[in-house]
Amino acid sequence: MKKSGGNGTPKKRNREAEVIAAATEVFFEKGYPAASIQDVADRVGVLKGSLYYYIDSKEDLLFRIVENVHEQSTAILETVSQLDTSPIERLHVYIQRHVEWYLDNVTEVSVFFREWRHLTEERLKVAHERRRGYERIVREMIAKAQAAGSINQDVDPKYASMYVLAAVNAVPDWYNPRGRDSAGRIAAAYADMTVGLLTGTAPRDYVVAARKAA
Amino acid sequence: MKKSGGNGTPKKRNREAEVIAAATEVFFEKGYPAASIQDVADRVGVLKGSLYYYIDSKEDLLFRIVENVHEQSTAILETVSQLDTSPIERLHVYIQRHVEWYLDNVTEVSVFFREWRHLTEERLKVAHERRRGYERIVREMIAKAQAAGSINQDVDPKYASMYVLAAVNAVPDWYNPRGRDSAGRIAAAYADMTVGLLTGTAPRDYVVAARKAA
Repeated sequence: MKKSGGNGTPKKRNREAEVIAAATEVFFEKGYPAASIQDVADRVGVLKGSLYYYIDSKEDLLFRIVENVHEQSTAILETVSQLDTSPIERLHVYIQRHVEWYLDNVTEVSVFFREWRHLTEERLKVAHERRRGYERIVREMIAKAQAAGSINQDVDPKYASMYVLAAVNAVPDWYNPRGRDSAGRIAAAYADMTVGLLTGTAPRDYVVAARKAA
Repeated sequence: MKKSGGNGTPKKRNREAEVIAAATEVFFEKGYPAASIQDVADRVGVLKGSLYYYIDSKEDLLFRIVENVHEQSTAILETVSQLDTSPIERLHVYIQRHVEWYLDNVTEVSVFFREWRHLTEERLKVAHERRRGYERIVREMIAKAQAAGSINQDVDPKYASMYVLAAVNAVPDWYNPRGRDSAGRIAAAYADMTVGLLTGTAPRDYVVAARKAA
């Protein structure tokens, strides 16, 4: 049965958002495989049966979380791509905003990265596609900045996008909200390092030295 | 009961290595939580009971794999730290060798990263300690290269080590052994990008532009 999703009354939409927020917390604390619909119902403070008004299965909850994270991260990418600035500056702004958004939504993003592979069949395919699509956009941003002459010609946009995304996506793993630095400070450091990575001098002499030393 | 570990006869050590190799494959294919000692015994082609000559529990197998990966990666770090070359060149050699080793041992390393959090109590503590110790060594290598004047003074060695390690540790996730590039080619690209990241010009003007655009 198809559920009505976000098209209900405002009251229904609020309750639905509450259910997704509760599922996010439960999946974060227990891990998706160990969590149950009952745990989510307990967290919301309703009977398990009333959750079936919003969803058909535990996987529905995970899929909503995954789709939410994907929509929000894509929205940042799209806003940044409209900015009237050079491609390399756009990359800097993108990393800065992306990391800040991650750190402001650390529970949701952690659930996304740890659990998305538990989706099945069509939904797993959708999630895979979206990830590939996202990586492609970042790779194209890098290729554009390279074509504009801002990036070292030796940098391979494919490897650079994998390098940068893996680094950025891991920030929620070690970020401590009560640590010494704000999300904004960390985001700025990551944006700076990313531009450094892309614009840094090709270390041909190190390669030669490395081969000798190896 | 304490098992004799690597101190047995050569024949016993060979069988033990075979058991660990089988466990690595099984954990890689099924995931640690879903895998059983029976699966490992089936892979080796022995009765389940005979595995108890080498280990007491499934967790023993995971812990051996985690310890093996840790020992090998630390050995690379130690060899590189003895090289008679500058700190920044040493970093280049380290990333190159580390990535190559990862890609040559992609099954074992993937099991390590996906499953180590399933260790419990004392062993989870040991694994956490070792990871922290490892990160500290990389951070110190970066700090040393910075003190020698090779690295941009604005780079924070803590963030840089987190950035680099996350990027490098994710290579096995997307590496395709039948893909266009060899492990050596990818390792060289990663080493170059890492040095670029550390030596790249501090993009103060991008920060200003980013603030304006934000």
